[in-house]
Amino acid sequence: MGSPKPGRTPGLVEDQTLQRIRRTLGNGIEPPGLRDDAAVLDVPGDGPLVVSVDSVVEGVHVDLGLCSPADVGWKALMGALSDLAAMGARPLGALVALCVPESTGDGAVTLGVMEGVAEASRETACPIVGGDVSGGDVSGRGALMVAVTVLGTVERGTAVPRHGARPGDVIFVTGPCGASAAGLRELRLPGGDAPGDSSLAAAYRRPRARLADGDTARLAGARAMIDVSDGLALDLHRLADASGVGFALDAVPVAEGATLEEALGGGEDYELVVVIDPGDVEGYRERCAAAGLRVPSTIGVVRTDPAERRLGGQELDRLGWQHALG
Amino acid sequence: MGSPKPGRTPGLVEDQTLQRIRRTLGNGIEPPGLRDDAAVLDVPGDGPLVVSVDSVVEGVHVDLGLCSPADVGWKALMGALSDLAAMGARPLGALVALCVPESTGDGAVTLGVMEGVAEASRETACPIVGGDVSGGDVSGRGALMVAVTVLGTVERGTAVPRHGARPGDVIFVTGPCGASAAGLRELRLPGGDAPGDSSLAAAYRRPRARLADGDTARLAGARAMIDVSDGLALDLHRLADASGVGFALDAVPVAEGATLEEALGGGEDYELVVVIDPGDVEGYRERCAAAGLRVPSTIGVVRTDPAERRLGGQELDRLGWQHALG
Repeated sequence: MGSPKPGRTPGLVEDQTLQRIRRTLGNGIEPPGLRDDAAVLDVPGDGPLVVSVDSVVEGVHVDLGLCSPADVGWKALMGALSDLAAMGARPLGALVALCVPESTGDGAVTLGVMEGVAEASRETACPIVGGDVSGGDVSGRGALMVAVTVLGTVERGTAVPRHGARPGDVIFVTGPCGASAAGLRELRLPGGDAPGDSSLAAAYRRPRARLADGDTARLAGARAMIDVSDGLALDLHRLADASGVGFALDAVPVAEGATLEEALGGGEDYELVVVIDPGDVEGYRERCAAAGLRVPSTIGVVRTDPAERRLGGQELDRLGWQHALG
Repeated sequence: MGSPKPGRTPGLVEDQTLQRIRRTLGNGIEPPGLRDDAAVLDVPGDGPLVVSVDSVVEGVHVDLGLCSPADVGWKALMGALSDLAAMGARPLGALVALCVPESTGDGAVTLGVMEGVAEASRETACPIVGGDVSGGDVSGRGALMVAVTVLGTVERGTAVPRHGARPGDVIFVTGPCGASAAGLRELRLPGGDAPGDSSLAAAYRRPRARLADGDTARLAGARAMIDVSDGLALDLHRLADASGVGFALDAVPVAEGATLEEALGGGEDYELVVVIDPGDVEGYRERCAAAGLRVPSTIGVVRTDPAERRLGGQELDRLGWQHALG
């Protein structure tokens, strides 16, 4: 924490807490950016840098009644890494800015969030190279916020954009959608009907960035990609907007236990929408099999008319995150 | 705004607002990270990447009664860039995560913050390459928060750490301290005695990262550096801690209108503490003059005993940010 600014939360600043954060994040090795003003990193190969930032805010993206501080940390890093996955990039490192207004004073929330960050960091081999911790204001006002910046790289000229889809291309999704939204619905059920350890609850609390899937799609020549962070329908619309095309879907893979609406409009599944030339489809499937990945599902084709946006015979609304949780 | 998650602040999501943000930040050119899931950047030369993250939180670091949303945006970017200055690194780009819980609905606070970010971006030639905007939660709880990640580079092996100070080295500071704290004090005076356009108020609202000063000190062979973000005394103690040394100060340059306590304990001056071998002092001064920079002030020397931390004949307390604003 190059420059920790603790506000009025005394427990948060104690050297002991900061040292515990460092140990949590560094696996015993002090991360470079937690020692100097900034971290000095090598970018391996001659590829460009691929960067993105994503935030998780209590009361907006997460409810601390439904998931733990560690879940919040995990979700924040995975959500940011999903943007790298959607470019076909490999992670090099991440920086975490944390604001904890309602600390317990002993830094329990801070340490909890950082523990989840550290778990996701190990899971994805993405080291934490910098951070900043802030307390809240005098009044205790303010929500927990975690902003994660991810740094990655990719072979020069191969990053997969949103805007590359062409009429006739085949649209895939890397797995069934809606599990995270269904998990949230389960967790919100009153009266203990929400088994916190169900696979749907886990999908909500511990989503995974599809880094291997994105890399494989890139190597197979994917022309456009986007991750399902806000909803399959909304994110597909965004890809089509960026590419200036339409689409016709004939299928939507729905996660077990989820509804069709959750599959189309539920956020944070982090499956990837992959758009690929028909001639590359066979090679893409073979690469997925060779990499031990789930077989991606064909869901439709890209159309010339940007106004054509349909599922079966019906127009597809821009169903997305705000609707699912509204 | 790879994946804007607006919460329940409808005005914030409107495409029009997001487009205005893009125009504000991009000078008419759409920043790369605001279009795809992530930005793809070249790292020029063969130098490593230098990265840091810093946050500004309403009620902790800033008071919106004393500065505008644009000031907050400016301060957030400059504070993060100051960490690059303290390594002697040049900025390549920045990513901005913004949480605006109490939006006016038309996105005025969001746009104000982004305008200040854009001004600081132009001032430092540091493009904004990515961002994320979040609204607040249902209850309107939460404080404005801006987290800025900066990316920079430096010739390989020349980044200046905190830990390089050796006994006998000369300690410089790049300019007088305390102006920002004095400006905050002025702005807090009741009854209109606080001229918002004074140079002290400007020092508080529009601080500058000493990028050229840091680069020059690096080229002159500086052995250790730190920026005065939390207080000259506290930051100097941190540098001494990292280097395992003590120090003896014989002077502290106090900004006009500031007190000695503000100079020692006031944060956000962003002057640099530069530690340099006695043999390199003359060359350092010459380089500063040639670059048109202010002449840095000698403030003391590095001592062998880590327990020796004094100003004149007295022990120097770890005066810093939380004290000055407490």
